Amino acid sequence: MEATTQIEAVTCQALDNGQLIVRLIDQRLLPEQEVWRELSDPEEVAQAITDMVVRGAPAIGVTAAYGLAQAMALAPADDWDAAWDKWCARFAATRPTAVNLFWAIDRLSRRAERDHAAGQRSAAALFEEATAVHDEDRAACAAMGRHGAALLPDSGGVLHHCNTGALATGGIGTALGVLRAGVAAGKDLHIWVDETRPYLQGARLTAWECVQDNLPATLITDNMAGWMMQQGKIAAAIVGSDRIAANGDVANKIGTYAVAVLCKHHGIPFYVAAPTSTVDLACPTGAEIPIEQRTKREVSHVGGWAPAELVPPLQVAPAGIGIENPAFDVTPAELVTAIITEQGVAQAPYADALSQMVAAATRTT
Amino acid sequence: MEATTQIEAVTCQALDNGQLIVRLIDQRLLPEQEVWRELSDPEEVAQAITDMVVRGAPAIGVTAAYGLAQAMALAPADDWDAAWDKWCARFAATRPTAVNLFWAIDRLSRRAERDHAAGQRSAAALFEEATAVHDEDRAACAAMGRHGAALLPDSGGVLHHCNTGALATGGIGTALGVLRAGVAAGKDLHIWVDETRPYLQGARLTAWECVQDNLPATLITDNMAGWMMQQGKIAAAIVGSDRIAANGDVANKIGTYAVAVLCKHHGIPFYVAAPTSTVDLACPTGAEIPIEQRTKREVSHVGGWAPAELVPPLQVAPAGIGIENPAFDVTPAELVTAIITEQGVAQAPYADALSQMVAAATRTT
Repeated sequence: MEATTQIEAVTCQALDNGQLIVRLIDQRLLPEQEVWRELSDPEEVAQAITDMVVRGAPAIGVTAAYGLAQAMALAPADDWDAAWDKWCARFAATRPTAVNLFWAIDRLSRRAERDHAAGQRSAAALFEEATAVHDEDRAACAAMGRHGAALLPDSGGVLHHCNTGALATGGIGTALGVLRAGVAAGKDLHIWVDETRPYLQGARLTAWECVQDNLPATLITDNMAGWMMQQGKIAAAIVGSDRIAANGDVANKIGTYAVAVLCKHHGIPFYVAAPTSTVDLACPTGAEIPIEQRTKREVSHVGGWAPAELVPPLQVAPAGIGIENPAFDVTPAELVTAIITEQGVAQAPYADALSQMVAAATRTT
Repeated sequence: MEATTQIEAVTCQALDNGQLIVRLIDQRLLPEQEVWRELSDPEEVAQAITDMVVRGAPAIGVTAAYGLAQAMALAPADDWDAAWDKWCARFAATRPTAVNLFWAIDRLSRRAERDHAAGQRSAAALFEEATAVHDEDRAACAAMGRHGAALLPDSGGVLHHCNTGALATGGIGTALGVLRAGVAAGKDLHIWVDETRPYLQGARLTAWECVQDNLPATLITDNMAGWMMQQGKIAAAIVGSDRIAANGDVANKIGTYAVAVLCKHHGIPFYVAAPTSTVDLACPTGAEIPIEQRTKREVSHVGGWAPAELVPPLQVAPAGIGIENPAFDVTPAELVTAIITEQGVAQAPYADALSQMVAAATRTT
């Protein structure tokens, strides 16, 4: 059975008059409130990306693509070129470090250039292209699910870190998508959702996805994962990735490295699921991946994912204490059992396998 | 230089009229508010233990001892025996699982029996005994500090889990006391305070102690500890214990086991500091130690350490998600580099060393 989800983080609907409506679930308010934003103004869509109403690199890319198409559907024909430049710059400035954002804008730019060369300026064509961006991300998730599900045990617990699901992508997700596919394939899996401090993407978002889609799941704090492994409750772990170096070192949400070490100690496989677009062949090893340090307040106060007037933050640490808050860590390739992409499953040694997958993906698109 | 602290979680002052005033810092409101409770009514003292105004097994024992002395200072001479029975039962019922509580009540009972045999009924003698309970705990912390400081590296980072300091004891603490002693001895240490989800004793209490006593410290989330070790920032880890089995298996706050595994992977020593009263020779191994499962709400909502009207809890997980919340885990003796008690330092094999230390402690008291 094909894996599915009831959750659509981003959708876009074309009205009869050609106007586009972008619909987002406000992820800042999850899990307490489920508020959908229906946005008819591209400036609101851009601001929603900046404000993290939508997050997760693939989901951001899809949202920006729809937002750009929406903007051009409203652009006056006699000012098309200026509007195009303005809105490309506007969406590129929403989250300066998100690779998928630039990639999505680039996809629409190439379509616009092709159309322009053919003497056409069609907002409908841009919506078509944005829809294709969404469809391709959905298909990549489905492919990762198919490839990855085969690796999962027939039964048992699987630890999942951060959020890698339908809220973060245009489809069923990366690591969580593999878990969805495993469950859909009839495997008797139980998902151990770690809460993923400090931003609590696991508790707030992945747990919410599990409840929505009725996936068998239990939430734990990050520091419980080792004990659950010791108790024999966890048979594998699976995570996503923000960037994979050419040698297979994996940068991902802080806490991933500790999960990989715990897996190694307990003889449990540690899987990474990420599209080939995450593989950075120009980056030889994890040592070259810069680690973003985020604000101390994410650690000292709980609740900073939402505007303070919507979710009043709770202070949990004293003023004056030093705090470190690296957003990511790097798991060395030797701790990674396999890397699951939409092109297939890579195993050590990773260098050849990853470069072949990237080449295959480039041929496809 | 002897290690000190400016923090006194529990003190008791005798007024000229013989009345006792028990003074507690309200630990439920830390770190945001520093509120001291001055209690002249033993019922208030008992309720403060139940309500977790004061927590930490040794600190609870000291508080109960003072509270019992306070109650008897108010007891009418013609109703002494009934009052004694009533207040012993009252304090014993405050936190049913705290060993130090029963031990403190027992200490005062033996003093009362000796006095009774000598034809005396003196509230002043009970206050003297409660003060002795406090002094002995203070001395045990100091002794652990001396023994443990010698084990710490001359410089470098030391990871600390949960709260084991002045707020939890009658002195400088157990594991945090060892760190205080290392710093006082002139070692160039840096304390890495992990926040200790779900109850955040590290973020709320240990970080507050470090700020108060100007200890060099940095707060991290639990899932950052592995990465800090990988980065070479952590040279040792030290934790307290709730119960140590005869073979050296260590039960302690959830997350301790994962710290021990991470230490092993990185070749870093893992120390446990706890008084011999923590050693349970009747418990052969960690497998016999029952693990308390606590309420799901501690994980799904942040802020439950305080009454909701004082600190409104923040929901971080969706209704309907399964949650596990074991309060403790067990670290097998083979992952423990040394156990530091007030009697000295035990190393593997632990069985003989621990039983000798318990015997030595019994001779002392």
